[in-house]
Amino acid sequence: MNKIELTALEEIPLINEGDNLVEIILIALEKNKISLNNGDVLVIAQKIISKSEGRYAFLNEINPSPEANELSNKTDKDPRLVQLILNESKEVIRYRKGVIVVENNLGLIHANAGIDRSNIESDNENPRVLLLPLDPDKSAAEIQKEVLKQTQIKIGVIINDSSGRAWRNGIVGIAIGSSGAKVLSDLRGETDLFGNTLEVTEVGIADEIASAASLLMGQGKEGLPVVLVKGMKESSDMNNAKALIRKASEDLFR
Amino acid sequence: MNKIELTALEEIPLINEGDNLVEIILIALEKNKISLNNGDVLVIAQKIISKSEGRYAFLNEINPSPEANELSNKTDKDPRLVQLILNESKEVIRYRKGVIVVENNLGLIHANAGIDRSNIESDNENPRVLLLPLDPDKSAAEIQKEVLKQTQIKIGVIINDSSGRAWRNGIVGIAIGSSGAKVLSDLRGETDLFGNTLEVTEVGIADEIASAASLLMGQGKEGLPVVLVKGMKESSDMNNAKALIRKASEDLFR
Repeated sequence: MNKIELTALEEIPLINEGDNLVEIILIALEKNKISLNNGDVLVIAQKIISKSEGRYAFLNEINPSPEANELSNKTDKDPRLVQLILNESKEVIRYRKGVIVVENNLGLIHANAGIDRSNIESDNENPRVLLLPLDPDKSAAEIQKEVLKQTQIKIGVIINDSSGRAWRNGIVGIAIGSSGAKVLSDLRGETDLFGNTLEVTEVGIADEIASAASLLMGQGKEGLPVVLVKGMKESSDMNNAKALIRKASEDLFR
Repeated sequence: MNKIELTALEEIPLINEGDNLVEIILIALEKNKISLNNGDVLVIAQKIISKSEGRYAFLNEINPSPEANELSNKTDKDPRLVQLILNESKEVIRYRKGVIVVENNLGLIHANAGIDRSNIESDNENPRVLLLPLDPDKSAAEIQKEVLKQTQIKIGVIINDSSGRAWRNGIVGIAIGSSGAKVLSDLRGETDLFGNTLEVTEVGIADEIASAASLLMGQGKEGLPVVLVKGMKESSDMNNAKALIRKASEDLFR
């Protein structure tokens, strides 16, 4: 492997609840004149997974608890949104004005529980927000299976989202769901150029792919939520994106 | 921009102190039959930058201080290596058995100050380790300038390293030096598909490129330390990789 090619698919329409993403993606591949091959990896933006799964919430339907109101005061955030963040989370990790960092229900450490207000059709009188998929590894597995069924081609699927980080400015793409793509590369026992055992044990490959795909997806008006990756050598392992989440007991930074 | 292509250059020899990296890379490009174009981004592994700059240290030449000996006891690490880590750092952020996380002299939060023992020719009686470049942004700028001088082509240069992260398993590539490549994408004031102002303000583009390139570089015997990236739209901004480091005062996680 010495070449990787990433292509953002054009002609992906705005996604609505209930849309068949596999059908839409296969049509887009055809329109883009790109053939799918075994080992290719499809990176799909979380946003269109959530939209197709109807993971919306309307702020007017949320009644903030006293806890949410208190955190709302401390962070200057809409108390209804704070309540939603709490609903989607196991634990508040940090907060300050404008930001609440939580461990969400998936185990991801995420600002505002990954709840998104951009690129969503919404009414100002009753704002609508988009939650993360309930089980992105499952969503990825279903897409992978359906692509296999319809095309007999075995691809990997990664669902990516943009995430803030400790210590560094700027969000980057991370893998929040995965199926059939190598997620972590285990280097234990491998040796270096001089025969010494490597000290590093694992590489977060699916996160690196998710970041690479983010470069093409953009955050704003671009509307390029699907990126096809060709050239990954190791795309047959079945571990899922949960493997990228560090156990709280092993995490020095929460 | 809807396509990005990454190619790891073959025929890069083992790098020694004083080697002219630009000459070596230009020869490799020719051998690989790849033409360089304005706007291309060269991602170069920190390791060969450090090697060419002779950033070695010999453990037998290090006399551990009482502070280093104490931290060595707490972490089960060689006291000479601990002393080197302290020399290369501003502050110890966290430690536990086997790991010392510091803010290094560049401001990077890094396990073991980024000091590396793999892929380095070393004598077991007097182990040799490799330190990070003194000023990777400057190293990148010099390479960019020299490429421009020799070829009249204006490329971006990113120096990447692998780094552990809070909350997530697996190391990923990050940009520790940069010149002529877009480092952070500032989205303030931009709107989404529906005309709403984006909440996200910055994307860590150079880190995403660094991660993408890491996929091809490998950690072990592969020896592919230079990756050429074609297809980046925004490669002319002159901000450097220091812009990716969050100010301590704005960091919730140290």
